Amino acid sequence: MREDHIMNTDSFAAIFGIIEQIRRRHPLVHCLTNNVVKNFTANTLLALDAAPAMIEDPQEAFEFAALADALLINVGTLTESFMTTARSAVSSAVAAGKPWVLDPVAVGVVEKRTLFARELLEKKPTLIRGNASEVIALSGRSGKGRGVDSGDTAASALNAAKLLAQSYESTVLITGEVDYITDGKQVATCRNGHRLMTRVTGVGCVQGALAAACAAVALDPFSAAVATALIMAVSGELAAEQSKLPGSYQIALLDALSTVDLPTLSKMAKIELL
Amino acid sequence: MREDHIMNTDSFAAIFGIIEQIRRRHPLVHCLTNNVVKNFTANTLLALDAAPAMIEDPQEAFEFAALADALLINVGTLTESFMTTARSAVSSAVAAGKPWVLDPVAVGVVEKRTLFARELLEKKPTLIRGNASEVIALSGRSGKGRGVDSGDTAASALNAAKLLAQSYESTVLITGEVDYITDGKQVATCRNGHRLMTRVTGVGCVQGALAAACAAVALDPFSAAVATALIMAVSGELAAEQSKLPGSYQIALLDALSTVDLPTLSKMAKIELL
Amino acid sequence: MREDHIMNTDSFAAIFGIIEQIRRRHPLVHCLTNNVVKNFTANTLLALDAAPAMIEDPQEAFEFAALADALLINVGTLTESFMTTARSAVSSAVAAGKPWVLDPVAVGVVEKRTLFARELLEKKPTLIRGNASEVIALSGRSGKGRGVDSGDTAASALNAAKLLAQSYESTVLITGEVDYITDGKQVATCRNGHRLMTRVTGVGCVQGALAAACAAVALDPFSAAVATALIMAVSGELAAEQSKLPGSYQIALLDALSTVDLPTLSKMAKIELL
Repeated sequence: MREDHIMNTDSFAAIFGIIEQIRRRHPLVHCLTNNVVKNFTANTLLALDAAPAMIEDPQEAFEFAALADALLINVGTLTESFMTTARSAVSSAVAAGKPWVLDPVAVGVVEKRTLFARELLEKKPTLIRGNASEVIALSGRSGKGRGVDSGDTAASALNAAKLLAQSYESTVLITGEVDYITDGKQVATCRNGHRLMTRVTGVGCVQGALAAACAAVALDPFSAAVATALIMAVSGELAAEQSKLPGSYQIALLDALSTVDLPTLSKMAKIELL
Repeated sequence: MREDHIMNTDSFAAIFGIIEQIRRRHPLVHCLTNNVVKNFTANTLLALDAAPAMIEDPQEAFEFAALADALLINVGTLTESFMTTARSAVSSAVAAGKPWVLDPVAVGVVEKRTLFARELLEKKPTLIRGNASEVIALSGRSGKGRGVDSGDTAASALNAAKLLAQSYESTVLITGEVDYITDGKQVATCRNGHRLMTRVTGVGCVQGALAAACAAVALDPFSAAVATALIMAVSGELAAEQSKLPGSYQIALLDALSTVDLPTLSKMAKIELL
Repeated sequence: MREDHIMNTDSFAAIFGIIEQIRRRHPLVHCLTNNVVKNFTANTLLALDAAPAMIEDPQEAFEFAALADALLINVGTLTESFMTTARSAVSSAVAAGKPWVLDPVAVGVVEKRTLFARELLEKKPTLIRGNASEVIALSGRSGKGRGVDSGDTAASALNAAKLLAQSYESTVLITGEVDYITDGKQVATCRNGHRLMTRVTGVGCVQGALAAACAAVALDPFSAAVATALIMAVSGELAAEQSKLPGSYQIALLDALSTVDLPTLSKMAKIELL
């Protein structure tokens, strides 16, 4: 029932335009993310002309989350002190009406983070970004996760994602060979991307930061999530034109993120409303 | 009153020579820095032929700060445990007579680090490296900081820097489009640099580590601070000859830091005594 | 007495084949490593087609170490909470019969980690990877370490390594200009490598992660340790064909790790049984 969807040709133009909004408005993204990807995350945001900030003390994070334009919570290297800071920052962001993104890295693989991510769900994340196994595990079904890899396909996680979106008034981006985006009503796919994106650590994680930047400037979370998928996947294709080896590919990806623009996205986009 | 200044043509030669001193003496720099830039900081020091070490336990840091040639304290991802370690390392470095650098990242933006950085001031840092907003906030005036960006110009922070330098017997390097250096009496500017330096995370932070390396080998802190500004800014210009995109620019910057030498600095320097 | 050695031409073929085993079996390596090298470590494992995971909470680490194929403990940025997590992960890996690697970074330089690394020795690490000073200090003799640099030669540490290997049923890889490998009976050397490897932070540390990946797939720890030395050193030579400057050399090293294969290793190997 295409006419039921909010998304249409105008929506597509709005999605393509989000990259320009980021470059114009420099959203300040408060990143509480894992210890493996902090540098790459900050450089990704800078490449997009957004402004990264990692403020990690619970008191400071409470103060800062209200000042920032969006918040990212990535549980990849969860510890007790991380949990304290994340709770503090989320409550502050929610109180201040700021969008926030939950990235449930390796949820379903180990127990503490699984429980913690579900606790955070109750605070209704604006966006959720995970692979298929993580999204399935977050929803309470059992997945096939192994570390940060996904043993499930994004398509197989779509029902779990819809359930999450409906239950928590959230929008879910499932990343994989094909990305799926749903707000519980609408479903979109993005078929851009390149296999080398899985050979660089943290491409998924930095996409969570990109999602926060998109959410800070977009008109609605669904458009933000589609733009997140598209900007990263198209940049991944552009990077593959520069290098086919993982070390130089990571550098090429940052370079591509700094140049990708509305005309390029419009031309290369393989997004679809289901 | 040029004749009142300690700095003269001989001083310039001494400043240009600091890079050679670093390459010859491999100063061991104990870096207590933020979680975003640790890798970049270590690689910057290695590119300069200095030796990085990140020793983060309070007991170990106390022991190590006395062995190292200089200490860096960067409060970017301050936590309670970071504060404990920093206090421990600073007291040890001071007791051992080793130079130490304070980098007050985002001071003025959130409260805990502002108070902590002011506490550390009492231990009289050899050098302070910050952007204009940070220097103004550290001095107790109100600035326009927003995350790690500076809403103030370096020139506007010069009076705050002089006050800090005089009150705490320190030398202050304010980095920005033009860098200002003052020890409370002398003032120098460095007009080298490239706008791409702001598109890579942590260029300011790693400059704090460079400052520590310079302080370890220089005859006086003022010369060390001018050399810090100059070495980074000239390397930033050299890197821009290799790449204009932020991913590959970061790599080119490390490459440039590994090749920059006395003749290049002498030729390209845009430094001036005010 | 060549005939006394387990290693022979067949062994060499087995060692060269370990790289193919990694690429085929994607061993999942649980890395508890220092804050400077986490990103580089993860990217190194991905370049090799292994799977990295950094799970840092003590409870989670206990759960995860039993699921992973191998564990790395690198004490570079040791803290009390790191020690708790490391103890937890090691006990779990040992109980599950998984190989684990101890990297005693800067042991001998500061006291707490020296005691802690010796405590971990009692759990009999499958492999130990260190420079000469670290291996000497770990064995209880006094070395000449200064930060992460080694003031001793690998050859001088060989007796300490044999002692360690015999006392703790371990295999020791001493990295340096020439690498030495011993399981207390056999001794091998690897003369590959390039001086630029010392100009990039963490090349030794990521080699610990590579050692864990090799141990996960190799038939015996001695072969795993020789393969670890060889894969890194040959990749280091290949990288030097691409770049002679440290920033781009690090990227070239990741690229080389992603392409190095059995024929290349066979052709370039300078390994020898003593």
